Amino acid sequence: MTIEVDYRFPAGTDAERQAQIIAVGQTAGTWDARFGHREEFLKAHLGEVIKGVLNPDGTSEATIAFPEANVEGDIPSLLTAIFGKYSMAGPAKVVAVRLSESYGLRPKFGIKGIRQLVGVGDRPLVMAIFKPALGLSAQDHAAILKDVAYAGLDLIKDDEIMGNVEETPTLSRLQACLEVIDEVKEKTGRTVLYAVNVTASLGGSSNLLEAARLLVRSGANALLLNVLSYGFSALEAIAADPEINVPIFAHPALAGAMCGSPEYGLNYSVVLGTLMAHAGADAVLYPAHYGSLPFDPEEEAKIRELLRSRDVFPVPSAGIKPQIVPQVLTDYGAEVVLNAGTGIMDHPDGRAAGVKAFFDALASSGFKA
Amino acid sequence: MTIEVDYRFPAGTDAERQAQIIAVGQTAGTWDARFGHREEFLKAHLGEVIKGVLNPDGTSEATIAFPEANVEGDIPSLLTAIFGKYSMAGPAKVVAVRLSESYGLRPKFGIKGIRQLVGVGDRPLVMAIFKPALGLSAQDHAAILKDVAYAGLDLIKDDEIMGNVEETPTLSRLQACLEVIDEVKEKTGRTVLYAVNVTASLGGSSNLLEAARLLVRSGANALLLNVLSYGFSALEAIAADPEINVPIFAHPALAGAMCGSPEYGLNYSVVLGTLMAHAGADAVLYPAHYGSLPFDPEEEAKIRELLRSRDVFPVPSAGIKPQIVPQVLTDYGAEVVLNAGTGIMDHPDGRAAGVKAFFDALASSGFKA
Repeated sequence: MTIEVDYRFPAGTDAERQAQIIAVGQTAGTWDARFGHREEFLKAHLGEVIKGVLNPDGTSEATIAFPEANVEGDIPSLLTAIFGKYSMAGPAKVVAVRLSESYGLRPKFGIKGIRQLVGVGDRPLVMAIFKPALGLSAQDHAAILKDVAYAGLDLIKDDEIMGNVEETPTLSRLQACLEVIDEVKEKTGRTVLYAVNVTASLGGSSNLLEAARLLVRSGANALLLNVLSYGFSALEAIAADPEINVPIFAHPALAGAMCGSPEYGLNYSVVLGTLMAHAGADAVLYPAHYGSLPFDPEEEAKIRELLRSRDVFPVPSAGIKPQIVPQVLTDYGAEVVLNAGTGIMDHPDGRAAGVKAFFDALASSGFKA
Repeated sequence: MTIEVDYRFPAGTDAERQAQIIAVGQTAGTWDARFGHREEFLKAHLGEVIKGVLNPDGTSEATIAFPEANVEGDIPSLLTAIFGKYSMAGPAKVVAVRLSESYGLRPKFGIKGIRQLVGVGDRPLVMAIFKPALGLSAQDHAAILKDVAYAGLDLIKDDEIMGNVEETPTLSRLQACLEVIDEVKEKTGRTVLYAVNVTASLGGSSNLLEAARLLVRSGANALLLNVLSYGFSALEAIAADPEINVPIFAHPALAGAMCGSPEYGLNYSVVLGTLMAHAGADAVLYPAHYGSLPFDPEEEAKIRELLRSRDVFPVPSAGIKPQIVPQVLTDYGAEVVLNAGTGIMDHPDGRAAGVKAFFDALASSGFKA
């Protein structure tokens, strides 16, 4: 099996030469007569330039096939192999990565599993975010959750910057919210998922897996992880662990640092689509093009399709408000989690009204709550 | 204590407005009368714009102070807090981060500890890289090591793309090299360090800490880690672990993806200098400006000084050849590890001659082997 990677080079680059540099320099490198006895093995590791295209705008693209034997079936060794040293060699962007179906992990829950947990068959799910992001007490969190959960919300999540802060330790926040979740379950039969933020200080020694296990043992029914801040190895370790029996929501924080530039890094669809989908995430958040973040609808569509192709729930976030639900349904279809921050929390009639406005909009489009 | 971050914006950006967006949007966010009872806590988390500068080239810079209470004393929560969502908001680059001395980890070994291990007091250390990168057998590795170790080499490392590959499993490579290291120790009294690559498949379940522990238990006397591919949490978990009693060499693979662009991401000196130095690395590799990678000498100087300020060994790599040693000494001084790939392995008279050429050059500059 091979791994195919498309690289884009700016106008004026000798793409053919760069492609050869990558195919050899990112694999076995060169060798001489001293290593003739290993020629068979050395050759087996070489990359191969399988395509080159000159685009009308002067940029060029090259596709290189890497042997799967060069990597370990995970995302970190893949990143080192396809872009490790070469990322520092000047402007070049990884615009697509094609992996075999069996490469990496699959979600434990994914779209089907998350739908089963919340008991919702076919409509888009509705997710809220605790706001303000920092500074509330555990009781404030519980009060907010009560408002939105009884209004019919499916899921809620911590803000990504909310960690194990002194005035609201994660475990106290979790306990206060679990009481609400239990009460809602008892009174309405509905399960609300709370994706609580996995951060290092919970587990001690920066061991994210221990932090995630502690949250699950403490009753968490979903996890939020800033995958790019902690690293793909943290997601993979958590996703592969048998003790983690709840869905993992991957947050895109920091993605812009490696995806924002048109000439450097990797495409958003590679990092938030392909890599997340092969690293075990159950749902992946990414900026919707409706919001204030400058996001390309085409790139967004790629993320959505790449995630869905492995049963990972796409979670478009930013600018998601009740009034654009019809447009959202046209653009995205029903297989999404609609993640609303201010769209719910800052609704003029209160957050419960914010949730109801979403369900009214969905009902107008034919989706029952 | 606060964390100070300098952001640079391209010409034409309303930097003052962006700075306010960061100071509020990356912290507590906004709030209203409903959260009046938490005002004291909410305010305590807000960032503060403490400086703004318009540069002669039209770009502008803003310095924002974040409360340390927003983060957990590690690098991942710091990255999420200072640049998580905002990284996706358009062109902006983190050009400097100033942390308190007590923030994060310090190296267990660092410059002093590594010098002690190899028994070299004041000259630059000389490091080689196994080449070709992939495809050699464990016996080939041992034969190469024998050549260079007896020639006086201080350290050797795996190529960063060399993982636990089928024809040369990491543990077999390590065992073969340890035999050479023991023999050299016995016959010459010298200790040669071999930084073996920590990769996920060694530990199972992508648990990098378990992989590192296994290597140390198997006799490894130094570790190599692709920090940015696996994530800063992997480095921190390994660095903080009491079982890990050998120095950690951090490799810069993938750094270009988040540092290469002039307008997006973070400066190389932030990622390879500040963040590595507060995440527990003992030595950090980075591209020297002598090589083929387009590296700015000023940025390189910053990395070197940031690392040294926390006793972390700077390891300039790329383009390091015996003939430039006098220039290297003038530019860098003696407190460096000179990391040579082809400069040793492809020396016309063989790799032992490559090592000797380095020591001859050092001797000409007054440094005894």
